[in-house]
Amino acid sequence: MGTLGAWTVDGIPEITAGDDLAAIIAEAMAAAEQGPLADGDIVAVTSKIVSKAEGRQVEAADREDAITAETVRVVATKEHPGGVTRIVENRLGLVLAAAGVDSSNTPEGLVLLLPVDPDASARAICAALRERFGVRIGVVVTDTLGRPWRLGQTDVAIGAAGLRVLDDLRGTTDASGRRLEATIAAVADEIAATADLVKGKSSGLPVAVIRGLGHLVGDLDEPGARAIIRSAADDLFRLGSDEAYAEGFRDGQSSPTE
Amino acid sequence: MGTLGAWTVDGIPEITAGDDLAAIIAEAMAAAEQGPLADGDIVAVTSKIVSKAEGRQVEAADREDAITAETVRVVATKEHPGGVTRIVENRLGLVLAAAGVDSSNTPEGLVLLLPVDPDASARAICAALRERFGVRIGVVVTDTLGRPWRLGQTDVAIGAAGLRVLDDLRGTTDASGRRLEATIAAVADEIAATADLVKGKSSGLPVAVIRGLGHLVGDLDEPGARAIIRSAADDLFRLGSDEAYAEGFRDGQSSPTE
Repeated sequence: MGTLGAWTVDGIPEITAGDDLAAIIAEAMAAAEQGPLADGDIVAVTSKIVSKAEGRQVEAADREDAITAETVRVVATKEHPGGVTRIVENRLGLVLAAAGVDSSNTPEGLVLLLPVDPDASARAICAALRERFGVRIGVVVTDTLGRPWRLGQTDVAIGAAGLRVLDDLRGTTDASGRRLEATIAAVADEIAATADLVKGKSSGLPVAVIRGLGHLVGDLDEPGARAIIRSAADDLFRLGSDEAYAEGFRDGQSSPTE
Repeated sequence: MGTLGAWTVDGIPEITAGDDLAAIIAEAMAAAEQGPLADGDIVAVTSKIVSKAEGRQVEAADREDAITAETVRVVATKEHPGGVTRIVENRLGLVLAAAGVDSSNTPEGLVLLLPVDPDASARAICAALRERFGVRIGVVVTDTLGRPWRLGQTDVAIGAAGLRVLDDLRGTTDASGRRLEATIAAVADEIAATADLVKGKSSGLPVAVIRGLGHLVGDLDEPGARAIIRSAADDLFRLGSDEAYAEGFRDGQSSPTE
C-alpha cells in the first residue's frame, strides 16, 4: 500500500533581498510540530520567495521591458481588455505567460522576476537542509503555470535537486505482466501540484514537505527541472496556432500555385 | 497550517465488464486499515477500471478504427518508427494521444477505450460511497496525459463529482492584501496528480483516498471535469504548429500578393 503525507511549514517570515533562504527554512522546520526532516522527504518551495531572496524585483513601471528581457521567443499572443498577454519561451526554457513576471504577492509598485537559476537555487537549499538535518532529501522550486486545452493553472517544478524529476516507467511491466507503453511520469510536477494543494495560493505558506516518495530521492547532482523542458524542435505546439498559420500564409503567398 | 494525507486502497480485484465498481470500492474501503471514508475525503479512481467495468474493451486489431471513432478532430500528428501518433480532440473534449485508447493493463489482444461519460461514472461512484458510508466526499476519475512544452505525463481529472474542480481565487487577496491576478487553480487535476504519486503506475492500485481538502468538497451536482475543458475556439494551441502552418500555406497560395 502506498501512503503520502504533505504539510506546510509555519513561521516563514516575509522574505527580502539577501536573506539566507535555506537557513530561514531550516529554522522554521526545526520548530515545526512535525519535527525535523526525515530521509526521503521532499521540500517544495515557491519560486516567489526564492526570487525575493535573490532580489529579483523590478519597478512595476518596467514590467513590459522586464518581460521582454526574460523572453527568448514569443510563442503566442492573446489580446484582452487589459492589453496583450505574451505567451513566451523564457530564458529557462519555460513556456508561460508574461515570461513568469509576477505582480501578486509583491510589494506595491514592484513586480517579481523568476529566480536566476531555479535548479541552482534548489541545489543550494537541498545541500543546506541535508547538512543541517543530516538527511537525504529532495527540493523542488515551484511556479504556477497555465496550460493549453485545459482551464486553470497548476503548479509545476521549475527547479529541482536531489530527486528524480522524471520517473521512466517504460521498462516496467503492468499488473498483467505486459510492458507499459511510453510512460514517463513527470513526478516533480506532480509533487509541485501536491504542494500547491496543501499550501493554497494566498495563505502565505510558501514551503511544504511531502513525505512518502523516498524512492524518488537521489544524489544532489540528479538532473534538475531543466530536464523536464521539451525542446521547441521536438514540440508539436512550439508556436501558437494563429502565429503558425500566419507564418504559413506569408510563405504560401510568396510561392503561389501558378 | 495545511496538512494532506493520501493512501491507496488495497484489495481491489481485477475489474471485468459488468462489475458494480462502486460496491467493489466500498467493500475494499470497509476493510481498509485507514478505516472508512470521512467527511471531506476525495476518492481518485483510475479511468482504466471504470472502462473495464463498462466493458469498453475492443479488439487490438481494431485499435486504429477505435481511435478514429473516439476522435472529434485531429489536432496534430507525429510520425515515429512505430507509425503515426494522432493527437486528437476526443468526444469528451480532451486533447490527447490516440484519443485515450490504451493498450497497457489490458487483457492480451484487447485495447481499452475511455469511459462513456466519466463525469456520470464519478457521480455514480460518489453517490454510492456517500450513501454507503454516510459521508460527504468527492470523486475524481483520472487518466494520464502528455502535455506540450514539458516532457513526461501527469494524471488529470477526466471525470469528477462532489467537489469543486476549479478553485477560483481571483476574488481573494494575497498575503500583502493585494488582489490576486487571474488565478484559477485546477485543483481536480492537482488531486489526480497527487493520487498518481501515491498509486504509482504499474502497482495495480487503481484507487486512492486524499484527505485534507474538505473545503473543495461540495454537492453531488457540482460541475464535473468537463468544466475543465477549454474550448478550441478559446485555445491559442487548438491546432499543432505544423498543421496550422500548412493550413496557412494553402490559403496563402490561393491569395498571392498580386
